[in-house]
Amino acid sequence: MSSNTFGSLFRVTTFGESHGAALGCVIDGVPAGLPIDFDALERELARRRPGQSDVTTPRKEADAPEILSGVLDGIATGAPVAILFRNTNQHSADYDSIKDLFRPGHADFAWESKFGFRDARGGGRTSGRETVARVAAGAIAKMLLARQGVAVRACAFEIAGIRAGTVDWDQVERNAVRAPDAEAAVRMADAVNAARADHDSVGGIILCEALGLPAGLGEPVFDKLDALTAHAILSIGGVKGIEFGAGFEAAAMRGSTHNDPILPGGKFASNNAGGVLGGISNGDVFTFRCAVKPTASLARPQKTVDRAGQPAEITTPGRHDPCLVPRMVPVVEAMTAIVLADLLLLSKNSRLA
Amino acid sequence: MSSNTFGSLFRVTTFGESHGAALGCVIDGVPAGLPIDFDALERELARRRPGQSDVTTPRKEADAPEILSGVLDGIATGAPVAILFRNTNQHSADYDSIKDLFRPGHADFAWESKFGFRDARGGGRTSGRETVARVAAGAIAKMLLARQGVAVRACAFEIAGIRAGTVDWDQVERNAVRAPDAEAAVRMADAVNAARADHDSVGGIILCEALGLPAGLGEPVFDKLDALTAHAILSIGGVKGIEFGAGFEAAAMRGSTHNDPILPGGKFASNNAGGVLGGISNGDVFTFRCAVKPTASLARPQKTVDRAGQPAEITTPGRHDPCLVPRMVPVVEAMTAIVLADLLLLSKNSRLA
Amino acid sequence: MSSNTFGSLFRVTTFGESHGAALGCVIDGVPAGLPIDFDALERELARRRPGQSDVTTPRKEADAPEILSGVLDGIATGAPVAILFRNTNQHSADYDSIKDLFRPGHADFAWESKFGFRDARGGGRTSGRETVARVAAGAIAKMLLARQGVAVRACAFEIAGIRAGTVDWDQVERNAVRAPDAEAAVRMADAVNAARADHDSVGGIILCEALGLPAGLGEPVFDKLDALTAHAILSIGGVKGIEFGAGFEAAAMRGSTHNDPILPGGKFASNNAGGVLGGISNGDVFTFRCAVKPTASLARPQKTVDRAGQPAEITTPGRHDPCLVPRMVPVVEAMTAIVLADLLLLSKNSRLA
Amino acid sequence: MSSNTFGSLFRVTTFGESHGAALGCVIDGVPAGLPIDFDALERELARRRPGQSDVTTPRKEADAPEILSGVLDGIATGAPVAILFRNTNQHSADYDSIKDLFRPGHADFAWESKFGFRDARGGGRTSGRETVARVAAGAIAKMLLARQGVAVRACAFEIAGIRAGTVDWDQVERNAVRAPDAEAAVRMADAVNAARADHDSVGGIILCEALGLPAGLGEPVFDKLDALTAHAILSIGGVKGIEFGAGFEAAAMRGSTHNDPILPGGKFASNNAGGVLGGISNGDVFTFRCAVKPTASLARPQKTVDRAGQPAEITTPGRHDPCLVPRMVPVVEAMTAIVLADLLLLSKNSRLA
Repeated sequence: MSSNTFGSLFRVTTFGESHGAALGCVIDGVPAGLPIDFDALERELARRRPGQSDVTTPRKEADAPEILSGVLDGIATGAPVAILFRNTNQHSADYDSIKDLFRPGHADFAWESKFGFRDARGGGRTSGRETVARVAAGAIAKMLLARQGVAVRACAFEIAGIRAGTVDWDQVERNAVRAPDAEAAVRMADAVNAARADHDSVGGIILCEALGLPAGLGEPVFDKLDALTAHAILSIGGVKGIEFGAGFEAAAMRGSTHNDPILPGGKFASNNAGGVLGGISNGDVFTFRCAVKPTASLARPQKTVDRAGQPAEITTPGRHDPCLVPRMVPVVEAMTAIVLADLLLLSKNSRLA
Repeated sequence: MSSNTFGSLFRVTTFGESHGAALGCVIDGVPAGLPIDFDALERELARRRPGQSDVTTPRKEADAPEILSGVLDGIATGAPVAILFRNTNQHSADYDSIKDLFRPGHADFAWESKFGFRDARGGGRTSGRETVARVAAGAIAKMLLARQGVAVRACAFEIAGIRAGTVDWDQVERNAVRAPDAEAAVRMADAVNAARADHDSVGGIILCEALGLPAGLGEPVFDKLDALTAHAILSIGGVKGIEFGAGFEAAAMRGSTHNDPILPGGKFASNNAGGVLGGISNGDVFTFRCAVKPTASLARPQKTVDRAGQPAEITTPGRHDPCLVPRMVPVVEAMTAIVLADLLLLSKNSRLA
Repeated sequence: MSSNTFGSLFRVTTFGESHGAALGCVIDGVPAGLPIDFDALERELARRRPGQSDVTTPRKEADAPEILSGVLDGIATGAPVAILFRNTNQHSADYDSIKDLFRPGHADFAWESKFGFRDARGGGRTSGRETVARVAAGAIAKMLLARQGVAVRACAFEIAGIRAGTVDWDQVERNAVRAPDAEAAVRMADAVNAARADHDSVGGIILCEALGLPAGLGEPVFDKLDALTAHAILSIGGVKGIEFGAGFEAAAMRGSTHNDPILPGGKFASNNAGGVLGGISNGDVFTFRCAVKPTASLARPQKTVDRAGQPAEITTPGRHDPCLVPRMVPVVEAMTAIVLADLLLLSKNSRLA
Repeated sequence: MSSNTFGSLFRVTTFGESHGAALGCVIDGVPAGLPIDFDALERELARRRPGQSDVTTPRKEADAPEILSGVLDGIATGAPVAILFRNTNQHSADYDSIKDLFRPGHADFAWESKFGFRDARGGGRTSGRETVARVAAGAIAKMLLARQGVAVRACAFEIAGIRAGTVDWDQVERNAVRAPDAEAAVRMADAVNAARADHDSVGGIILCEALGLPAGLGEPVFDKLDALTAHAILSIGGVKGIEFGAGFEAAAMRGSTHNDPILPGGKFASNNAGGVLGGISNGDVFTFRCAVKPTASLARPQKTVDRAGQPAEITTPGRHDPCLVPRMVPVVEAMTAIVLADLLLLSKNSRLA
């Protein structure tokens, strides 16, 4: 089952904890000859980096990637690409006060039940910092996808109950919350900052699209395009749901309304399907939304128990994002790109050449 | 990637098409010594069987399971358990009229793009009939779970926009739609039959729970309990979304409301998490909902194209469920049970004994 | 680890016991469009069939394959190909006398240690009969290989210490032992029959070659061509060793003699490497030999213990091959073909198109 | 297929090239709570280190391991254990003279056929240096095995045709060639040095044993103990064959001689089986031998071609081991330990507790 490895032909293994020596990833299956664009890698990482704006955590982490293997003179060699991130700004002592308490909404309790143990230095492997390795791997996946004309993009569709009124992709990287609507972005940012002022947090919904996907991606019956994507996206800490195309609204529709009429040229008159039929891409835009819970770490007292099972109050130390969504947008793109890269490689064997 | 195999230690491989000779599954990893309850297997299959009530398709399929291997004198031997279902009531000729048309909402178009070919005899591998193998494998998984005190149950939480007002699990198997609310069940059934009268179809939402799950199931970071479950559930044809605990509603909550306070004894004051924190079970009830689209096959004309790309109308022949939900309830349970059985086996190696 | 599944993109799952209802295989990853030659399938099975000559067991087993899925009008559809073999000539009662004894040289003792249990009806899953599913899957693999100009062939290189003096492939199917040397074949057959007369058995060495293999097959670093082949061949019951090219003789050679000089045109002046360098095919003939132990089941008394741990004597009932080699030749070919088909599919993704 | 990952529950992923920035491994599945003995890790690495004696290469490589993750206060946390080795003594310029030539006996030609490219800096990923990551992972596996009373040991059974007359394990680490026979060790060392003086190389045979293995390890039918071990050992560069127990000699034995009589107490009167029956450990010593070819890199001219296909001569630069065996002994142990650790974890699920 390989819990720290994801994918079949394009396979990503990650390692590292938030307060250990380093985090990183090993990407197996990068085809030899792929140009590795170091600047593009840096750009993706910058979008996930803490401290990038006033709606994120003020923590500073350099997140400087070091490519250890698999690339020679800027070209992938066919050997596994390993990328390393040294930890440099960890304040483990911050966590001393809560090392015997379980943080509500966190993995502490479940993790200790599993391993008989937990790494109390800021979350260890369950930290959001783990996603730096995913973004790095996703950046490589995007380079592979780009050669086939496939692009992945995501945005903050809703934050704190405030939904984007329009989806203008040009706006996304122009505002701190990554909303596709400049006006809503202002209100979203206000809501994030109001929550922070209350020592509280807010959640939201991320919209993601893949453009240029050929029809025919997805492996029946268990590794459907949507099934693998759901696996990948739900593996991101804080995601609580996913829906494709019309999603949960489809549940209240009639078939005659929901079915997307097929037009000449393999086009569809609507896209309730979200670009996936029977688990296989149909050539239309692949589209899904995922629900992100409000950040669990709060700088206000919450009810909990200590490791002896006694009632206690906890105020989580550290500097946390009051809303996970803005920095999770590139993580959702990364995991989607990893799935699509894998399915593109797999699709070469669907039928005889 | 093994598209027709699911799972790691408890591994299910399925095969077969709706209008071929047979369907079946091979279940690897059933621990030797597990008693195989043939009656329980039959009961699960009966819940999925066509023609079981007036809200389902009137098709009759015997779905008689034959255990080919892996069981001796009613006990699992440790060898793979293969279960076979012969196809007996297939009317392939029904489909002759549409063999050159793509059915809207179906996998036809995407499948042909992938394989250069499609099995036009009633859906082939994309048919809902494929789920008979999943239910059989899920029944074996449930037998394993039961020995550890784990039970899985699901119900029709919403059909055609009509939501259950209460969740009374005792009601579920007493009404044809499998709703947990006797009164709502009547209205749901009426809505299903109204859709059928209109040659149309309706969708719904299935609620699923696992009881008795120990804390500590789920494999960080990629094979989280919720991530694997999402993979499994989205692999069922017709499912368009999934949410855990508070799900999409969590997106509009504040952290102080969403976080479940931890009580002495490892209990939680609420269950917004849905029993899973950081991807690992926390000992509370594991709960999720999934969205089911309205049946794509309609006995009314729909716009489409033929294989030459010319505009056409299509009226799908055959006898289809006007709502997939009632018969999908046991399928959702089955896939959930398969995931949980796998994670239970995996959990034995989380830490030193 | 999936002990009953082998392969990555071309994946074979087998099931069934010698004295159960049936055996079979499910082959995932057969590319859509591959013509399935039923006669070729039958021919391969006939080469493995019991009772084919006077040097094999006189047992009669029809071994009639039924293709259950994945093939339509003689063409693979892209869905998993399931092939079933009903058991028809099983005499379970034969084994009653030894159900509480462990057979020397058999898996009985180890199997019971593992599963707390064993299927005493003729070996169950450890029976050589399990290989019928392998040969069926290998036949499909050979059909895929043939389209790429790759052929796999094997022969009895040595039996009972009698080694073929020449390797004339035209002779192999002309004698009952499948030796590549007509003269040695006679002596080998005599040795087999002498052993049978003594209620004893003999072993041998199988030579296998793959012709037409392109350079570049094999996945560094763990799934090398030779490593995967060794895995596949050692998974056949009764095989005790494998060597590639010069094999164990290479251990006593100097580098200057062992290294195969490279000639213009990518040819080699010798083939001590056996067609594989650094785990990757080099375009020369891929060649290996494997050691087959003498049949463990003997119709003479042997020392053993019973399940209570008390000393006992055992005479194995049933009708067994006095030498496994002749009927194992097609099994070795089959497993090799499965590995090569998998590597051929994988090789499409080594580098950018 | 995951060519750079090996194992199922105890999974090892390696990365890195001989002349890149670093090499390393990520070990997934180390049970939480396992004490990590850093000194033991160092000792294993020292046994593989270049320059350790006058029969090995005089190259100096520090091979200082840095544990990046998965260990806290000397205890495994359940998170993946990543171990890094920086490259420090690489002389890439040494290889400039041969960057357009294919080295006989090397992977150059096959690698370039596969990837359209090769990393000419000393072998890249095909370098023996890649095994440093295997030895590190194997050291962790040995720590896990030791807790179950299992030990793995190997030695130089034969070098340059000179075979050990006795197997005295106490001698192995007392001589530079790692022979189990002090007298033969001297002759082996002389043969190695004579080959070096001739600018030539020699091969040998490594014997490996696992002690204390419980009966019942190995997963039928494809992941048999011997099949997985063969896969692991043949994945080591330079290994050309493997045999278990009596191995190739079994081919010439009769069944009545080869079968190991079973004695009271689950003991065996002989061990022709090599401790494995039907692919499952039988509780006796698990034993195999593998053939190692003479080092391919020679400081004498050899016939080859250049990348344009023109005839050429090549003299391999660099400082190479005249015999791979002494430094491969710990590599063989490491790969064996990785297989056994995996099978031990898997064996917990063979039957109901």
